[in-house]
Amino acid sequence: MPKKLIKIAQKIQKLNNEPVIILANPQLGYNIGAVARVMANFDLYKLRLVNPRDGWMADETYSSASGASGILDHLGIFDSVGASMNDLDFIYATTARRRDLIKEVLSPKSAAKDMMIRIKNGQKIGLLFGAEKSGLSNDELSYADAIITSPVNPEFASLNLAQAVCVIAYEFYSAKAKGELGRVTESDKGRTEGLPLEKTRNANKNEYIHFIEFLEKTLDEKGFFHPVEKKNMMLNNIKAMFQRQNLTQKDIKILFGIFKHLIDE
Amino acid sequence: MPKKLIKIAQKIQKLNNEPVIILANPQLGYNIGAVARVMANFDLYKLRLVNPRDGWMADETYSSASGASGILDHLGIFDSVGASMNDLDFIYATTARRRDLIKEVLSPKSAAKDMMIRIKNGQKIGLLFGAEKSGLSNDELSYADAIITSPVNPEFASLNLAQAVCVIAYEFYSAKAKGELGRVTESDKGRTEGLPLEKTRNANKNEYIHFIEFLEKTLDEKGFFHPVEKKNMMLNNIKAMFQRQNLTQKDIKILFGIFKHLIDE
Repeated sequence: MPKKLIKIAQKIQKLNNEPVIILANPQLGYNIGAVARVMANFDLYKLRLVNPRDGWMADETYSSASGASGILDHLGIFDSVGASMNDLDFIYATTARRRDLIKEVLSPKSAAKDMMIRIKNGQKIGLLFGAEKSGLSNDELSYADAIITSPVNPEFASLNLAQAVCVIAYEFYSAKAKGELGRVTESDKGRTEGLPLEKTRNANKNEYIHFIEFLEKTLDEKGFFHPVEKKNMMLNNIKAMFQRQNLTQKDIKILFGIFKHLIDE
Repeated sequence: MPKKLIKIAQKIQKLNNEPVIILANPQLGYNIGAVARVMANFDLYKLRLVNPRDGWMADETYSSASGASGILDHLGIFDSVGASMNDLDFIYATTARRRDLIKEVLSPKSAAKDMMIRIKNGQKIGLLFGAEKSGLSNDELSYADAIITSPVNPEFASLNLAQAVCVIAYEFYSAKAKGELGRVTESDKGRTEGLPLEKTRNANKNEYIHFIEFLEKTLDEKGFFHPVEKKNMMLNNIKAMFQRQNLTQKDIKILFGIFKHLIDE
């Protein structure tokens, strides 16, 4: 884990109300590592395991964590689902299957909003995920205050454990990013608004006209506009094409470079 | 793969405008399998690999696909990024890093809406993902029409390959689920209505690549790329410029006309 990340992790460990990821009976070290990695991707650091299968801590656990080993080093291990959440106030459990239990069922997106509100109100949040093959038992589910069910293909509903964590963590991170308007970076801004990253400014009219006049003159000299009655239409098509493109200053320079090179040959 | 899923897959293979997932230089069979699984989770079935590492098809490829083996059995293998998208109209590339290339940068959510609109308009969509360690090279990125960057922890931005696919596939599935309910959102509406009426259809990848290859050859022959060490950078700038422009079929014809005339003089 990069030093910066360790610092963040240490800081966040001290914050009591960061969401805790709880894996009930996880079977495969590879998946536990992959969960740690995707947690770090989405700025989550508190991981707890309930009765992980013997031998879960293997080389592949660390290799699949891919640098998020600090999360593995600081995780908590518990011998029952109840014990893993003793200090928490509100538990969301994730399941693809419909259950007989009558609980609120949220999408990842609405759960993320709900989590934001609860955290702001000082509640400590847990996110409970079941074992790879079997998911959460009804007994385990009974600890949950709400259910999160992701929209998935009903014909193929079983998400890999780390993918299930990914979807929830992604939505929570996105909700947080929206909420924290104070810390939006320039790149975030471009992203959220769907704007292109401008590295160079658009060409102004003067630069554009200069280029088009040069092109017209060049093509005229080379006898491109033939027959001459069609010149206006041909030129309009060319202008319309370049006009539509929102050429940047750099584009104009590239185009000048190409055309000047070709006619000087 | 369950029988139901095979049926769905066969049905969808026939639909020309289902998004295609393209993995450039994937290294690990486990990840390719995991990508197939999460594709099935979110109802995507078309997978293409560009130069997968030798030995990618292993036991673990099938075990991590966990039942989505039909996707592995029907994937396409290509020897270049360009060849993998010959029949496609619009390519989104995913990257965590900021690049110098000026392209539209979308969040997974806004990309999903954009995909929906393009698919409704009959465009064939590709989603391009880079290799595990290295991501997409600038050359590979130059094939993209738009960039998708997921909001992630800037201190730990590198998503596992299957997780990167997961986030995009999840957002696309969610957008589709909304669309299927007939609930077009306000922002979708604005988008569709805001689009210019196309007089002529956009150039497809094949036409675009044909033009770029012609231009590269021409400029090479005319000694444009000088000094030769800068050729790649210069060519990427040219590609980025034309790529950004959403050239129509007619534009390509005009550009061919201009360049052919100038070099034949």
